[in-house]
Amino acid sequence: MESWDVIVVGAGSAGLATGIYAVRSGLKTLVLDEKLAGGNISDAPRVENYPGFAEINGRDLSEKMVSQCKGFGVVLHELESVVGLTFEGDTKIVTTSDAVYRGKVVIFATGSHHKFIGVKGEAEFRGRGVSYCGVCDGPFFKGKNVVVVGGGNSACATSLYLSGLTNNVTIIHRRGAFRAEHRLVLDVTSKANVNVLWNTEVEEIKGDRQVRLLSLKNNVTGEKTEFAVDAIFVQVGEVPNSAVAKLSGIETDVAGYIKINLKQETNISGIYAAGDVTTHPVKQVGTAVGQGITAALEAYNYLSQLR
Amino acid sequence: MESWDVIVVGAGSAGLATGIYAVRSGLKTLVLDEKLAGGNISDAPRVENYPGFAEINGRDLSEKMVSQCKGFGVVLHELESVVGLTFEGDTKIVTTSDAVYRGKVVIFATGSHHKFIGVKGEAEFRGRGVSYCGVCDGPFFKGKNVVVVGGGNSACATSLYLSGLTNNVTIIHRRGAFRAEHRLVLDVTSKANVNVLWNTEVEEIKGDRQVRLLSLKNNVTGEKTEFAVDAIFVQVGEVPNSAVAKLSGIETDVAGYIKINLKQETNISGIYAAGDVTTHPVKQVGTAVGQGITAALEAYNYLSQLR
Repeated sequence: MESWDVIVVGAGSAGLATGIYAVRSGLKTLVLDEKLAGGNISDAPRVENYPGFAEINGRDLSEKMVSQCKGFGVVLHELESVVGLTFEGDTKIVTTSDAVYRGKVVIFATGSHHKFIGVKGEAEFRGRGVSYCGVCDGPFFKGKNVVVVGGGNSACATSLYLSGLTNNVTIIHRRGAFRAEHRLVLDVTSKANVNVLWNTEVEEIKGDRQVRLLSLKNNVTGEKTEFAVDAIFVQVGEVPNSAVAKLSGIETDVAGYIKINLKQETNISGIYAAGDVTTHPVKQVGTAVGQGITAALEAYNYLSQLR
Repeated sequence: MESWDVIVVGAGSAGLATGIYAVRSGLKTLVLDEKLAGGNISDAPRVENYPGFAEINGRDLSEKMVSQCKGFGVVLHELESVVGLTFEGDTKIVTTSDAVYRGKVVIFATGSHHKFIGVKGEAEFRGRGVSYCGVCDGPFFKGKNVVVVGGGNSACATSLYLSGLTNNVTIIHRRGAFRAEHRLVLDVTSKANVNVLWNTEVEEIKGDRQVRLLSLKNNVTGEKTEFAVDAIFVQVGEVPNSAVAKLSGIETDVAGYIKINLKQETNISGIYAAGDVTTHPVKQVGTAVGQGITAALEAYNYLSQLR
């Protein structure tokens, strides 16, 4: 059974930053990802808010982090998923699809995934007018007309955010009322350039090189319409990838995000979490990176004290 | 009196990241710095641990962030120092060396400065052989013999840099072992022209027009010696730049670091802090950036609720 100082689960921005700092601190470091390395940012067509890069393709940014990681000697296993975590005293036993490892520290950087609405065109136009992140992509649609799909906090917050940037925001919600914080609802409904289509579902996303048109259906009257638009922001939920962590006794909030403190510590000694899978309030590349660095250096401190 | 949504105090990595996110969120944003923009990272000869850049000069990295900030429309005032902060209800009144501003939110990203060793000759010879910045002053001592005082990351990184420029580097450390990243320690100890004097303290810095001699004391044996040298680079730690914050009632720890939570909130509503000036356990560019982003987006949430 291979032994490691640090096993990082997830090779997105948080996991890669963790890897860079862990291995530079002299720790024998394994980074595992069930997919290819890079994480969600790899899907972003254009990133212009990661400090240091005026504009970069998401895949290029993640590839730079991957090669930086490998350059320092991080061992990266792609397409290897972690299926279990158990404990033998201070030692962590990590079971994957391929092997079983012993680790002194485990860092969860497993991220989250966006819920899809699952309609025709959604996958096809992703990055060409279909977005899952207002803060990331909103500024590309200044002065344009956009749609936000959803009726919860993230849909309202995204709509509010986009109302300050774009010409017009239409919220499309399948129910007849929001399920969001009262304050957010008041705020969003007070905006002159925000409209709501209640009881409405998107049936198809159409376009050419970019999104142009949505096919809509009113689920009360059955009426079908076409709706011209420049972008559609899908905000129907986000799910943290914390199933294995939860099963091994790591504490999460009700939505499944792993509870952390300023040191990225979880409730279990020697187990850290960083990035979108945590209760940290912001989900951005720059914040994931900061958390990953912190987790690695705090893991180093923990291991120094063990010796 | 000019009014701003967000006034950021400090234009280092944290302040610049804050600026990028605040202005992209549609907030009218002013960033002030008592020096030139860039912060401490501008002094780093080589940065190879900021995720995304395999290797970059510190000044180049900070210049990229400054131009990114300006590109989005942040107003940046350099050489303007904040001297006071008072409150009128929810409004913050920021007094600087040049003007008085009204702000809805103030974000302290004031960083930290180098600690002095506090010995005779240190102030007298500053700029004449006493330096706090290897990259700034190292090139003046090509082919000369220099001393670095300290035993942490900055002392080791500075020694490594100076070993490539000068004839000989002697690290003077008051302890018997380094407190630095394992990787840095390996690198620095592998250099043929770097020596270490353990358990040794500088008692006085002597010279004529320039530094010539150090009076040293071994704090284990008590032995005193004189050490001929052309320059002394002091790298013994950092002090947070939190004087104005403290005076205005913002809570700090005993060392003066501003207390923050995961949202970068301080004890005062509408006042945030980010980067090296905070109690966050890690002081790195990547963590400063993450905190700056979080402060900006949390400030945005706070302002949305005010309206």
